[in-house]
Amino acid sequence: MPFKHTFRVHWVDTDFAGVMHFTNFLRYFEACEEEFYRSISLPFNTIREKFGIMLPRIEVRCLYKTACHFDDLVEITMSVREVAEKTITYDFQMVRLHDGKLAAEGSVKCIAVNSQWKAVSLPAEIAKSLRENGT
Amino acid sequence: MPFKHTFRVHWVDTDFAGVMHFTNFLRYFEACEEEFYRSISLPFNTIREKFGIMLPRIEVRCLYKTACHFDDLVEITMSVREVAEKTITYDFQMVRLHDGKLAAEGSVKCIAVNSQWKAVSLPAEIAKSLRENGT
Amino acid sequence: MPFKHTFRVHWVDTDFAGVMHFTNFLRYFEACEEEFYRSISLPFNTIREKFGIMLPRIEVRCLYKTACHFDDLVEITMSVREVAEKTITYDFQMVRLHDGKLAAEGSVKCIAVNSQWKAVSLPAEIAKSLRENGT
Amino acid sequence: MPFKHTFRVHWVDTDFAGVMHFTNFLRYFEACEEEFYRSISLPFNTIREKFGIMLPRIEVRCLYKTACHFDDLVEITMSVREVAEKTITYDFQMVRLHDGKLAAEGSVKCIAVNSQWKAVSLPAEIAKSLRENGT
Repeated sequence: MPFKHTFRVHWVDTDFAGVMHFTNFLRYFEACEEEFYRSISLPFNTIREKFGIMLPRIEVRCLYKTACHFDDLVEITMSVREVAEKTITYDFQMVRLHDGKLAAEGSVKCIAVNSQWKAVSLPAEIAKSLRENGT
Repeated sequence: MPFKHTFRVHWVDTDFAGVMHFTNFLRYFEACEEEFYRSISLPFNTIREKFGIMLPRIEVRCLYKTACHFDDLVEITMSVREVAEKTITYDFQMVRLHDGKLAAEGSVKCIAVNSQWKAVSLPAEIAKSLRENGT
Repeated sequence: MPFKHTFRVHWVDTDFAGVMHFTNFLRYFEACEEEFYRSISLPFNTIREKFGIMLPRIEVRCLYKTACHFDDLVEITMSVREVAEKTITYDFQMVRLHDGKLAAEGSVKCIAVNSQWKAVSLPAEIAKSLRENGT
Repeated sequence: MPFKHTFRVHWVDTDFAGVMHFTNFLRYFEACEEEFYRSISLPFNTIREKFGIMLPRIEVRCLYKTACHFDDLVEITMSVREVAEKTITYDFQMVRLHDGKLAAEGSVKCIAVNSQWKAVSLPAEIAKSLRENGT
């Protein structure tokens, strides 16, 4: 089931053009991802401490459809597209709640690495939970 | 001819994992783009004031290859891949100067919009300069 | 009555030292301020559109007491210390909710400016609401 | 002798009001501090690796005098005001180079902590170098 996360665009998120800076869409995608992992009882700290891994990004893509402005209430819908041996791919959609317009859609691909930043297999417990809860 | 821009990774660019946060690669891509436009005598302010247009991003993609750390000296090479009627696409490569490793590569696609955020044709002078200087 | 705002420390808020970067405390102070103004039906957009003013900062001060880490739940308490003719001063306290420790305390002084960035008197309606609701 | 560091205001540094966001002044103060330490052959990484200490901020203050805009060339002048047993205090001034106007002035106080974040005496070599080079 897709996961939803709502946030408000802050003043600091905007730029000279009066809209949310393009990099901040990706910051909110990541905030959504953090909330998703917490919702499945696997917050990043647990993943780090219990399994000894981190999940750095190896690919990010975002299509910008409609600008977001200060104070807009925005909803992100995130789903896990693929859980591979060492990688996870998420899809994101961001919608402006006041008019339902699609603001952006994107994807993020992460890889499991150990504390030496070497790619490793995704722990089975994480893979299972992602398949059960994120798709 | 590709354009080059060098910067140092600041403390604030790093995160808990000890590496440059993935969104900051894109911030530096944009800083490089700003320097490129200034180098061809078309800084963003001129584009805005003289031609009445802005160039918001409509698509961003980045592949992360090697982490960058605090104090790393990093070089971005940027080239203009395509100048279409209303859009411009750039390619970026980021290399760590201390070992020559590719840190990231990505592309950014912008669209010309007027002050009402309506897509418009790219002014001929800008298109010409991009073709002559950025490819 | 003081206003309270709770947030979670995001991954992007942290730095190489594993703690929230010192500038992000101030970003959250501002986010709290935005929520406070919305709570008294005077969101920044209304202030801008209805009264033609903005409230840029002229002074910021922050004392850092205890580090905040990724995923910490943190509460900001904000109160309006002074409403002068053209300026407003707020006090902020930030507390880590898991142990009640004071993370930081600070103050922010803003000045009312018109669209030409000239200092102007604070509109009576805003001053009144701040005195009634923020102290 | 005061240390000087020049930078250009980037698009991402600006906000909806068309000016550099107030937190970014502090980011540039820190970037200046990083360059200063590198200039005296004590980059933060050396301080961390050779002496086992870090220098987190315990107090920050900034007075904002004149707004900075996108593309402004800005110069920071930094001096070491005080080197105490465990703390260092710097003063910063930021000037817009196109008109010489003072943009902001502030101070930052840091404390030496070991890897357990316990306050410790500043290593003599660092204190000496700061007194000789930063004042």
